Amino acid sequence: MTDTDDIRLCRTFQTAPAAVPKSDSAKYLVSALEAEGFRAPDWLVPDMEDGTAPDMKAEGLENTIETVPEYEFPGEIWPRVEWSYEDATFREKGTEQIDRLVAELGDEIDGVVVPKVGRLADVERAAAVVAEAEAEHGYDDGSIGLSIIVETGRARSDLREIARFGEDSRLTALVFGPVDYTAELGGRDLGDGRPRWDGLLEALSNEASAAGLLSIGGPFDDLFKERAGLTYYNADEYADQVAHETRLGLDGSWSLYPKQTIQANTIHMPTPAELERDVDKIERFNEAKREGTGAVTLDGQMVDEATFKNFENTVQQARTIHRTRPGQTEEYYDADLLERALELELSYN
Amino acid sequence: MTDTDDIRLCRTFQTAPAAVPKSDSAKYLVSALEAEGFRAPDWLVPDMEDGTAPDMKAEGLENTIETVPEYEFPGEIWPRVEWSYEDATFREKGTEQIDRLVAELGDEIDGVVVPKVGRLADVERAAAVVAEAEAEHGYDDGSIGLSIIVETGRARSDLREIARFGEDSRLTALVFGPVDYTAELGGRDLGDGRPRWDGLLEALSNEASAAGLLSIGGPFDDLFKERAGLTYYNADEYADQVAHETRLGLDGSWSLYPKQTIQANTIHMPTPAELERDVDKIERFNEAKREGTGAVTLDGQMVDEATFKNFENTVQQARTIHRTRPGQTEEYYDADLLERALELELSYN
Amino acid sequence: MTDTDDIRLCRTFQTAPAAVPKSDSAKYLVSALEAEGFRAPDWLVPDMEDGTAPDMKAEGLENTIETVPEYEFPGEIWPRVEWSYEDATFREKGTEQIDRLVAELGDEIDGVVVPKVGRLADVERAAAVVAEAEAEHGYDDGSIGLSIIVETGRARSDLREIARFGEDSRLTALVFGPVDYTAELGGRDLGDGRPRWDGLLEALSNEASAAGLLSIGGPFDDLFKERAGLTYYNADEYADQVAHETRLGLDGSWSLYPKQTIQANTIHMPTPAELERDVDKIERFNEAKREGTGAVTLDGQMVDEATFKNFENTVQQARTIHRTRPGQTEEYYDADLLERALELELSYN
Repeated sequence: MTDTDDIRLCRTFQTAPAAVPKSDSAKYLVSALEAEGFRAPDWLVPDMEDGTAPDMKAEGLENTIETVPEYEFPGEIWPRVEWSYEDATFREKGTEQIDRLVAELGDEIDGVVVPKVGRLADVERAAAVVAEAEAEHGYDDGSIGLSIIVETGRARSDLREIARFGEDSRLTALVFGPVDYTAELGGRDLGDGRPRWDGLLEALSNEASAAGLLSIGGPFDDLFKERAGLTYYNADEYADQVAHETRLGLDGSWSLYPKQTIQANTIHMPTPAELERDVDKIERFNEAKREGTGAVTLDGQMVDEATFKNFENTVQQARTIHRTRPGQTEEYYDADLLERALELELSYN
Repeated sequence: MTDTDDIRLCRTFQTAPAAVPKSDSAKYLVSALEAEGFRAPDWLVPDMEDGTAPDMKAEGLENTIETVPEYEFPGEIWPRVEWSYEDATFREKGTEQIDRLVAELGDEIDGVVVPKVGRLADVERAAAVVAEAEAEHGYDDGSIGLSIIVETGRARSDLREIARFGEDSRLTALVFGPVDYTAELGGRDLGDGRPRWDGLLEALSNEASAAGLLSIGGPFDDLFKERAGLTYYNADEYADQVAHETRLGLDGSWSLYPKQTIQANTIHMPTPAELERDVDKIERFNEAKREGTGAVTLDGQMVDEATFKNFENTVQQARTIHRTRPGQTEEYYDADLLERALELELSYN
Repeated sequence: MTDTDDIRLCRTFQTAPAAVPKSDSAKYLVSALEAEGFRAPDWLVPDMEDGTAPDMKAEGLENTIETVPEYEFPGEIWPRVEWSYEDATFREKGTEQIDRLVAELGDEIDGVVVPKVGRLADVERAAAVVAEAEAEHGYDDGSIGLSIIVETGRARSDLREIARFGEDSRLTALVFGPVDYTAELGGRDLGDGRPRWDGLLEALSNEASAAGLLSIGGPFDDLFKERAGLTYYNADEYADQVAHETRLGLDGSWSLYPKQTIQANTIHMPTPAELERDVDKIERFNEAKREGTGAVTLDGQMVDEATFKNFENTVQQARTIHRTRPGQTEEYYDADLLERALELELSYN
């Protein structure tokens, strides 16, 4: 999170399989593209990698190329292609997919998501593939972004170096991939699930923040729960995971399902009470400054730069959401509060 | 912690605002300078950064310059100045403050504390500012120390490199700053507080230890608690935090308040039972060595170098405290035990 | 863990003191060399460092040289020698021990274990000592391995660089040493034990995995428990530690005792139910591929490469154990299941 006006928003990174074995193979992709309000993710990721079966990848690419331009999707579009640091076949497939996507959808997509990257050199190789497609099809340098899934021991080992490369490159987001990561390290589920990999999450948040990148948590796939004869959506555990990621400063969470998107969009948004509280504090701080008295204390608490930065973070996040998703802020906040948040002067000095 | 005789002691890093909006603006600073016994911190940090309001910084600097020489403070004096890796204005203010402090108080202070440092280059820049003031005012090279607050994503990212720079430089302590750190990463308090940042704490302890620096935990600001109609000092939660830091091998804890100083001074000191136990073991080990029999086992437990190092750590810590704060060791330990601890021969071979 | 056929197996790293003050000073070493079935560790480590008293080190070396060739030990033999990054005396002793071991036991040992290493340069120095002994006594380059104990702040600080050095060197395993590590960092036991050092364990698993090395947990020394008048083997807490290490993807655990070896051998082995489940899934996947229908879904769950890699990990681990310890797999698995696991075709494409 930064305090500039061009915060990039990715509260929700929703993958949708680009092709499924149904009569309408683009069914899930279309349904995600049609989502509205809180069901629409900030980033929609048409997935032609692990979410799409090996024999349907080609169809997934065609579905993406055909359907994306048909919708005015309110968020960003970031297709996920194939790749592997340890297998040139997958890199060749990924290179072709990236080339086709830029050729056909260069104006519609914000970037591509590359999975299973290895050390820094492999990330640079992926960035070079995007650069080449971009140049080949006449797009401006840097106009097509790159986000990566951190899911190998090598990418974790080089995370700091990869993030620093991201400071001045098209690299945009670092996304965690816990299933492959656990398999790579040889971690075994002994009946109580995977580790949460807290050290990795802390590093992901830190390195992304230090390099001005976004950090996104991994998918939660226990979508449903059974209890007392009933099967129901596992809302609590997903919310717990998203809340944990929010506390650690991750910018967004992975969603596999519209209900998850609603939850992650909401948790990564200041609550009305938080926004009200921080808008109020900044208004009173500004007022005191104008009167030239006591600008430094509010309710007996000193307002220093660190405290002020926290109030400001809240307001900036609401403004950024409003800029791209006004339907959500208008639904979630009282009209008067929203207006105050938008008009506030944000300056400590 | 090292096993040499010149362990540097910083069980307590107590900040005191250098100026407050009261009739006597140096009130808190003076009260800290007057503290005795367990209320006196190992390091007193006159704070002209976040603890002092923006419009009182100049007065804070003058208060520090005037009051510090008036007291024979038993510990070290480390003023905290302004700084920011991302804002040259703050670095200029910090540079002027450092210059004034060295000019006026070069014989009284042990070093300066610089907050909000960024990557290694920024720490080197701060070190150069201190070196310049030192040379300008005729002090020996290295006589004015530098400690930094680790509270930005960049400083955390470069922690290993910063600590290695500290191996051969004036860098003395790495201090955690959780409030700014959490704001920088965009971590949000959802009602149950900030994360404890365990990965960072483990790294801080390790890198400081590997480079021969001190590591200090962050402030705990829930000073008071309300329950059943009563407001009282929150002794338990602060003690829990300090105990956690002690287990991880941090050398000291941050204090905001005299009662916290008492607690942190005490927890970072071997208890009488610990000291008695380890002195006894070393005495019996030495005795067995002299007799040439069974030097290697005590009560059936083998004493190897690793075990011996633990006994020795206990005794060294007590000796170091005694060297600088004899009032505390004399109050806390039985006279006979203290004498045994001071006279013991500490050598494994 | 890798998916090649030459996975190196070290579920159990059992140290045995090379000499103890008993009438038969090689008693524990001999007993470990005679162990059979699940009591025999994958790696037996004759210990002439901290497990053997200072005045018995020479005897420990002779015991190792005499007894090891007398037994057909089913696992690998890795003697632990003396060393210290901060004390040349210990490095000289270690150098002589390595030279003698390679000279006398070069055909019997798989490598040596070097403790208390410091930064990368110190690990390179240890590797050079092994290389010199190897050349001196006519062994092929790389035939004598090197494993290190990670137990100093410096080794933890350089862990990534040390592991990368291991990619193309004789370095084989990274083993955690928590007792010395905690003493080095100055961590104090306040009555509830040492920290678990979760950040370090996560990094150990990751860096070992990224560099193709093995990662091994630290010893658990609360061998016995007293309760209600009875003293008994502390099976539960050791199993909890080993299970924690397994989840994090460590390849093996440290054992100090035959019962610990049984437990660690077992926990680091797929259970019969796990093996049955994953063999069954791969068989059905292979069948569906042959029929050219629905290769991609099993029981409604899509089998992608990541899922497949998990099934494959299970089978590979069982195969590797079978290759070196057929007695264990034959005892643990039903004959029919074992045969299916050995004959399965493992290929995703």
